[in-house]
Amino acid sequence: MDDGGEIQRLIALMAKLPGLGPRSARRAVLALVRRREALLAPLAEAMATVAERARLCARCGNLDTTEICAICRDPERDDGLICVVEEVGDLWAMERAGAFRGRYHVLGGVLSALDGVGPDDLRIPALAERAATAREVILALNATVDGVTTAHYVADSLAALGVPVTSLAQGVPVGGELDYLDDGTIGAALRARRAL
Amino acid sequence: MDDGGEIQRLIALMAKLPGLGPRSARRAVLALVRRREALLAPLAEAMATVAERARLCARCGNLDTTEICAICRDPERDDGLICVVEEVGDLWAMERAGAFRGRYHVLGGVLSALDGVGPDDLRIPALAERAATAREVILALNATVDGVTTAHYVADSLAALGVPVTSLAQGVPVGGELDYLDDGTIGAALRARRAL
Ligand SMILES: [Zn+2]
Ligand SMILES: [Zn+2]
Repeated sequence: MDDGGEIQRLIALMAKLPGLGPRSARRAVLALVRRREALLAPLAEAMATVAERARLCARCGNLDTTEICAICRDPERDDGLICVVEEVGDLWAMERAGAFRGRYHVLGGVLSALDGVGPDDLRIPALAERAATAREVILALNATVDGVTTAHYVADSLAALGVPVTSLAQGVPVGGELDYLDDGTIGAALRARRAL
Repeated sequence: MDDGGEIQRLIALMAKLPGLGPRSARRAVLALVRRREALLAPLAEAMATVAERARLCARCGNLDTTEICAICRDPERDDGLICVVEEVGDLWAMERAGAFRGRYHVLGGVLSALDGVGPDDLRIPALAERAATAREVILALNATVDGVTTAHYVADSLAALGVPVTSLAQGVPVGGELDYLDDGTIGAALRARRAL
């Protein structure tokens, strides 16, 4: 049956979003139609813009709609501090904590023998270039096995530069992931960072 | 901080959807950007189409993108049976059950003294017109206090027409809402419908 093709198609697409199933997709679409001017039309436009313009920052790997991201462009931030994170979601978590005013470097993942991710698959060479002129590199990787392995690999690969490499310490629970921590915990971990 | 304006704007809009909070909106946006061609672009387009074209069917009140909905246009369905539901979501639930092949009439709500919803706020006059030529009117309203009140009001208002008015019976739990029932329960309730 062709039961309102375009609306059912929208429901089917919404149901593919993480966190939404078919039922919540139906409810979301009904809510969107009810708030057509206030929510549905702006959302369609925001999605089209992001679909067309989203890109990874050429300098730090952050997600933005400009070649150099807003954080890299911000003249108020400290160029001497580089915070290394695994993914864009981790950068957002750091920003929400509001405890860091330097620059970021997004690796785009972690080393993983299981998933076949080696150093060349991550943005580690680019990090070495940026770290050469930095005052400190802060590793804010997840406290998982792969995250810790990656942190040690990055610290080793930067050792020859002589730049201090520190890592988030106190407050990150073992096995925990940054994106699930509260802002206070992230702030505390940042302040108590230790030399690797 | 302007932290990637358009992406943060998309996250803020997504977070307004029922079932998504700020965290799941962030995850959804990251997933959308990763699946830009397969999901984000088609979703933007589907939303724009629905935002522009969604409307309630002039005949039955169903949500579609055409003046007369696909169910009302379907020549295979039985014009003599009219199933009355509260909301579009209930019509969808009936359709998923696959047990009904007649036409629908969406009231657009239920009578509610508390919310100040009277008969003139619902599509009851239009129902009386359609019911005049029907073989049977099946009330598939929610088994809530307001739903039962509305069912009796509708049955009374159709009494003069002499058309049999039945109602979903067996299987709808007291206080239950159609949209939360499994398909089998809805089918059983439809088959065991009783005269009001
Ligand atoms: Zn950047
Ligand atoms: Zn219709």
